[in-house]
Amino acid sequence: MEVKILRVLENAREANNVIAGRNQMRLDKLGILAINIMSSPGAGKTSLILQTIDRLKEKFRIAVVEGDLASSVDADKVHEQGVPAVQINTDGGCHLNANMLESALDNLPLTDTDLLFIENVGNLVCPAGFILGEHKRVMLLSLPEGDDKPYKYPLMFSGVDVVLINKIDFLPHLDFNLESFRTAVAGINSRARIFQVSCKTGEGIDQWLSWLMGEIKMKKGAHY
Amino acid sequence: MEVKILRVLENAREANNVIAGRNQMRLDKLGILAINIMSSPGAGKTSLILQTIDRLKEKFRIAVVEGDLASSVDADKVHEQGVPAVQINTDGGCHLNANMLESALDNLPLTDTDLLFIENVGNLVCPAGFILGEHKRVMLLSLPEGDDKPYKYPLMFSGVDVVLINKIDFLPHLDFNLESFRTAVAGINSRARIFQVSCKTGEGIDQWLSWLMGEIKMKKGAHY
Repeated sequence: MEVKILRVLENAREANNVIAGRNQMRLDKLGILAINIMSSPGAGKTSLILQTIDRLKEKFRIAVVEGDLASSVDADKVHEQGVPAVQINTDGGCHLNANMLESALDNLPLTDTDLLFIENVGNLVCPAGFILGEHKRVMLLSLPEGDDKPYKYPLMFSGVDVVLINKIDFLPHLDFNLESFRTAVAGINSRARIFQVSCKTGEGIDQWLSWLMGEIKMKKGAHY
Repeated sequence: MEVKILRVLENAREANNVIAGRNQMRLDKLGILAINIMSSPGAGKTSLILQTIDRLKEKFRIAVVEGDLASSVDADKVHEQGVPAVQINTDGGCHLNANMLESALDNLPLTDTDLLFIENVGNLVCPAGFILGEHKRVMLLSLPEGDDKPYKYPLMFSGVDVVLINKIDFLPHLDFNLESFRTAVAGINSRARIFQVSCKTGEGIDQWLSWLMGEIKMKKGAHY
């Protein structure tokens, strides 16, 4: 029984990768940079997206895909900022897949988009295993989750381009060792950039925006 | 393809339920109360278990099963308290299943146990869908995760007996509406007990222990 499940899931994984490749080609043709944002529930994915929209919406045309098990709370918040947003409800599913993103892309004004945020389901496990067609993978670690998370969720930490340590304003109230966290991440993923931010106070957001704008420009440069 | 996956998973779910039933019968025969503890990563499951061990170890014989994708960090901490602990590494798997618990039970001194904690993988999605043979399901919501979580993770909130709002000592620093959180939980699950605790300061732990001791005694009463 175990073996049978694995076989089917392997096939599903391959099918997902084919669609992810198609999504990426579609985005590439239009010079859109797509960022897959992942984290535990409540780590601040939507807050990061809202902060970024607030700071960059005069410079770049942004669109958002929101993934959740249920509700449209997040897409509503994004839409209030005047940004095109599509909510994907997975109906209990624990991660987005490339097929879901493809449907979302059909419902976004892609020819008027420079930057696409894809907010994955709040889950530090399953989203790590499914590519969607994104160019960069970004994860948030909320400071109160603790500095031992890289040891416990290695697959997530190993596959991302950026780790954002969010809620850094809580540092004085917590027993969180930044040095040992950074060492743990580096041991799993030496190429990951690490930024310390607070989406509430705005601390550290400039470094994140600087990295992000560099990536958008590189993507545009490759396109034109 | 979709349909095929669903069919196989349905069969796997049924197989899981059969083993879960067997586990529960085994625990019942020995008068052991088993508690499945679930939460997002870093919400405080291990801290709750350690606090509870510290307060109850003179009264009851406790054993622990620790579930993680990788590492034995948590089992080591529990073991330091002089309590039998088995670590299950799921090797990337996003939840415990009944089969894993069965193997863990084979490695615990069950005839010398009153209370068994099963710490699930840190994940607010997948563990909700798999029973293990536990008698009660308990979830922790870490205050910094936000008060909107019941809307986003309804399956988890609907299936638990107890919701512990942990890290309640952060309340003055956060925009968390306790009333609207309680209303949201009640709308999904009217029978769930809600306790506000801090595993760091010990605040509210007495109410949790009082509920837990009541359950242990009921289980013992049913046994003898």
